[in-house]
Amino acid sequence: MARALGEARAAAARGEVPVGAVLVKDGEILSSAGNRTLELKDPSAHAEMLVIREAARLLGSERLVGCDLWVTLEPCAMCAAVISFARIRRLYYGASDPKMGGVEHGGRHYAQTTCHHVPEVYPGIAEREAGELLKTFFAGRRD
Amino acid sequence: MARALGEARAAAARGEVPVGAVLVKDGEILSSAGNRTLELKDPSAHAEMLVIREAARLLGSERLVGCDLWVTLEPCAMCAAVISFARIRRLYYGASDPKMGGVEHGGRHYAQTTCHHVPEVYPGIAEREAGELLKTFFAGRRD
Repeated sequence: MARALGEARAAAARGEVPVGAVLVKDGEILSSAGNRTLELKDPSAHAEMLVIREAARLLGSERLVGCDLWVTLEPCAMCAAVISFARIRRLYYGASDPKMGGVEHGGRHYAQTTCHHVPEVYPGIAEREAGELLKTFFAGRRD
Repeated sequence: MARALGEARAAAARGEVPVGAVLVKDGEILSSAGNRTLELKDPSAHAEMLVIREAARLLGSERLVGCDLWVTLEPCAMCAAVISFARIRRLYYGASDPKMGGVEHGGRHYAQTTCHHVPEVYPGIAEREAGELLKTFFAGRRD
């Protein structure tokens, strides 16, 4: 999660919402990224989406069996769904996201019968640090 | 929707689940695509995602204000969310998808307080044709 927090900090420095993610297989980091929606002009370029696309490219498969995802914020509905499509084994995340989250908030994707692969979910990892990054970022933008 | 159905048929011919989408602005087609998850080894490469990313690239903005999306199948949770992030104005779709849909099924993304832009939604456009394409495709795969 330290690496994911580093990616979140780098995203903030680029003026992006500070969220970072890392994708791990067999103890090795396959891909890591921060949010790049503004830089890439791509509404789907959330950190989770970027690490999943990169890992799928590296492994040559749209299914990332045995891979675990670490992300600093509760995934949104889009990312919760792509995590399921990619067959991610374990999802570790930091801060909860009552405003946009799709795991424990909103449509709670993994609780739906329309979700056909549910990862093991471990919330609250380095929650305080991940949350502080976001709070500082949005406080700065309101100045 | 005829163009979207053509993209769905082309997807089936490539062995992909037959879903097609077209993105329109001011009466002009900005982008059109069929599902390419297998070909691109990308779990996010649904037709809707591909046309939104391409249009965002063309317009140089992650927000597609004033754009309308036509798709042959009810969008899943991932696509429902990216449609919202992209600020799509109107969503026209064909067949309902009780198995994986995220608009009128599952987490019903647009009914959630975690969804901050809700498009106008017009379901059931050329529903029979879109549904037949999918039925024929999956019947063929069970042989």
